[in-house]
Amino acid sequence: MERVCQALHSRIQSAQQAAALIKSGMPLGMSGFTIVGYPKAIPQALIQSGHAKDLTLCIGASAGDELDGAMVRHGLVARRYSYQSNKDMRDAINGGTVDYNDMHVSQFPLYVNQGVGPAIDFAVVECAAVTEQGLIPTASVGGSDAVVRMARQVIVEVNTTLPMGLCGMHDIFEVGIPPHAKPIPILQPEDRPGLPYIPCPTEKIAAIVLTDQPDRPAKFKPLTSTSRKIGENIVAFLKAEVAAGRLPENLGPIQSGVGSVGNAVLQALTASGFRGLTIYTEVMQDAALSLLESGVFRFASASAISLEEKTRERFYQNIDTFRKKIVLRPQEISNHPEVIRRLGVIALNTPIEVDIYGNVNSTHILGTRIMNGIGGSGDFTRNARLNIFATESVAKGGLISCIVPMVSHVDHTEHDTQVIVTEQGIADLRWRSPRERAELLIENCAHPDYRPLLREYLQSALSGGGQTPHDLALVFSFHRRFQETGSMRT
Amino acid sequence: MERVCQALHSRIQSAQQAAALIKSGMPLGMSGFTIVGYPKAIPQALIQSGHAKDLTLCIGASAGDELDGAMVRHGLVARRYSYQSNKDMRDAINGGTVDYNDMHVSQFPLYVNQGVGPAIDFAVVECAAVTEQGLIPTASVGGSDAVVRMARQVIVEVNTTLPMGLCGMHDIFEVGIPPHAKPIPILQPEDRPGLPYIPCPTEKIAAIVLTDQPDRPAKFKPLTSTSRKIGENIVAFLKAEVAAGRLPENLGPIQSGVGSVGNAVLQALTASGFRGLTIYTEVMQDAALSLLESGVFRFASASAISLEEKTRERFYQNIDTFRKKIVLRPQEISNHPEVIRRLGVIALNTPIEVDIYGNVNSTHILGTRIMNGIGGSGDFTRNARLNIFATESVAKGGLISCIVPMVSHVDHTEHDTQVIVTEQGIADLRWRSPRERAELLIENCAHPDYRPLLREYLQSALSGGGQTPHDLALVFSFHRRFQETGSMRT
Repeated sequence: MERVCQALHSRIQSAQQAAALIKSGMPLGMSGFTIVGYPKAIPQALIQSGHAKDLTLCIGASAGDELDGAMVRHGLVARRYSYQSNKDMRDAINGGTVDYNDMHVSQFPLYVNQGVGPAIDFAVVECAAVTEQGLIPTASVGGSDAVVRMARQVIVEVNTTLPMGLCGMHDIFEVGIPPHAKPIPILQPEDRPGLPYIPCPTEKIAAIVLTDQPDRPAKFKPLTSTSRKIGENIVAFLKAEVAAGRLPENLGPIQSGVGSVGNAVLQALTASGFRGLTIYTEVMQDAALSLLESGVFRFASASAISLEEKTRERFYQNIDTFRKKIVLRPQEISNHPEVIRRLGVIALNTPIEVDIYGNVNSTHILGTRIMNGIGGSGDFTRNARLNIFATESVAKGGLISCIVPMVSHVDHTEHDTQVIVTEQGIADLRWRSPRERAELLIENCAHPDYRPLLREYLQSALSGGGQTPHDLALVFSFHRRFQETGSMRT
Repeated sequence: MERVCQALHSRIQSAQQAAALIKSGMPLGMSGFTIVGYPKAIPQALIQSGHAKDLTLCIGASAGDELDGAMVRHGLVARRYSYQSNKDMRDAINGGTVDYNDMHVSQFPLYVNQGVGPAIDFAVVECAAVTEQGLIPTASVGGSDAVVRMARQVIVEVNTTLPMGLCGMHDIFEVGIPPHAKPIPILQPEDRPGLPYIPCPTEKIAAIVLTDQPDRPAKFKPLTSTSRKIGENIVAFLKAEVAAGRLPENLGPIQSGVGSVGNAVLQALTASGFRGLTIYTEVMQDAALSLLESGVFRFASASAISLEEKTRERFYQNIDTFRKKIVLRPQEISNHPEVIRRLGVIALNTPIEVDIYGNVNSTHILGTRIMNGIGGSGDFTRNARLNIFATESVAKGGLISCIVPMVSHVDHTEHDTQVIVTEQGIADLRWRSPRERAELLIENCAHPDYRPLLREYLQSALSGGGQTPHDLALVFSFHRRFQETGSMRT
């Protein structure tokens, strides 16, 4: 297959020519998910020319520094949706110079498809190839199908460094919008009800730009003894659930959040004795790829594959083998409540902090400064058969307790959270009242240094009574102490 | 059809005989949803004998005072799941003498079916009739199918005051548990993929008790000019959405939360000009029944029908007509994310308070004392095509502002909430950053008396920066002022 089909050769032009189509104030839909498969040439051309400002960037999830970082540093961005993880973009959002609304990963394409939100002028999408039927995505699909569908016109960046073996790895299923939405016929992670490309009429393609700049590879922190212990605690818990008959022998599909703890948890499965497991997740990282190779996992469904440089090389070199074991889906499908609930997914995510009643903060430092966004943690936590939040019990060398009286921002409520795991132990909160939850979280999960302070808070709160005892005067005492002294310790 | 089929006549016994089967410490699964279709004879017999204490009551949603109130007053209840609305039950929960875990309505049966939670010894279920195939429910289904399925044995209360015309109004579809869960083939509110009864093998039925005590009828507060204004604001918003092409002409199915504001909102549809609408909700109340009669609604799907006495009489008298326009489903289906998202439901719910960034508290007074529980508001809000929270801008004659700096308990996060409506106006929060949301909520929705205080808080918080500016020292100043002075006003 050619990178660009014959019929579209005439649309090939320079990034400068294509970028000139974009005007100030336009909403743009862009590809990119977990810093994989984002456009690079058009952002660079926009920065060089500087003619288009006040842009609204609608991207399914995080893009690389060449897009998010560079464009925001050059003052071209007014609004950004939906998940982001770039330092300079984050600073602009926290500084109030970029307006940001933080959506669930599954809901961004839902809104785009239903015409709620900005009317997208151009979709700018990185691809492996373009045919007369449509676009062959990269190692991420994300929200590309939705922005291509809804955009007035499409600019394609065809990245010639991508292996053509990506063709056939994707499954693009269109749910449709109510009242014409269809059931999603996925009964197991490997089902492929869709097309292997993103449909796009050729007349909608305004320009094709050839590029050869690879994604910046992912980087993960090395495993520590603490993250290893967390992984072991989770594996022990899962085995107990299987023994109690609450989980099947093969667990059911696993979702694992982005980041080092996620990698550590999957790593712990290596020596667990589990075999033939599956993944139904939004992002596959290095550990997941290794587990596919070793047979611990037999199949993986995701919306993106985010790898360190050496692992990515191995993935590309063996792509014909991996294509039989991996399917990449739109984020609307990878994170869809319908499929997550039906498949009985086990959700593993990482919080910033958890409070004594099991509310989880996944997004905001000290209740005000956003980190990356909620991502898909809400989609999976709410609809999973079993959800687990795993974190080290302290951060910043012990200056911060990850178990606090009240979280300073709520992303997952007490109604949704089930199991909390730290290196200290496990709190199984299911069917537990708030008072019981506080006991379990303080005694099993909090760091021993912070247990006396947490017990003291709980005692004081209990005197006021209520289903969820709190003393509103002291509820943020841990956070305020940190703001004032640099430590949550007294 | 007979109330009790011939083959089961021998199981008919007195409530005292049946209640004697229940022992201390047993988890019981019971019918009941919005104070409709709950058992009455067995609770009364248990109270009279007093032999069984420390009971765990697993009920899909709220039961009447003869069950929740009377049993808790007699000290028989140790634990209660999942939604409740009885004053004495609530007091026991807030006092810490009954352990209560507050789940989403759709998740209670999900957990029960998956064997997570207490192993139910007896299901005690009120019915209109019993056949060799199973049980014909009352005007509620709730979680009865799940507790009957999972219980060791079943005690049936056949209520002879219920009209036999209820037969055929129900649709019991079993989703199954992963990895054997099936797609739910509901493409419009009137689809009936299930059975008209709750399957129950005759050998599982331990006892049948005949009763003739009707449910306590619902009571709603009369409409006020404020609630009328809220209804008008919502109808105006919906019309604008249709005009903008973001909603179809017939809106799509409507969910409306329990209570007086819900009734007021539906009432406002009467004179709206909309016709042929549908309902996909958990509870139908009086206003919905009237709108079915007048043709504003053409069909309603719910899990229960909760009516005032006179409306209930009308419903029973005309049940053969209503049976063509109403289907009653298990709460697992009425509230299932899969169906809600596919149908494009519009969700209307009532908060206790909303904060300036759009987080919603639906359950806790001053962050500590629970009211009724989250109910289905989370199922619908998260998965609706459009969700609206409607409340009066103040409560207690102006002593409480329903718009506050930070909600004292979060049930619906900023990621989920879309539109807030008060009698003052509308805040459309979709795709808005937190700073924009604060502006809209303060200027459009807050009561004019509280706007200066809210602006003052926001100004002070903005000086600290962040995506979601907050001053953790002042964040609960409104609530603490109310605790100290009896008013949120200065």
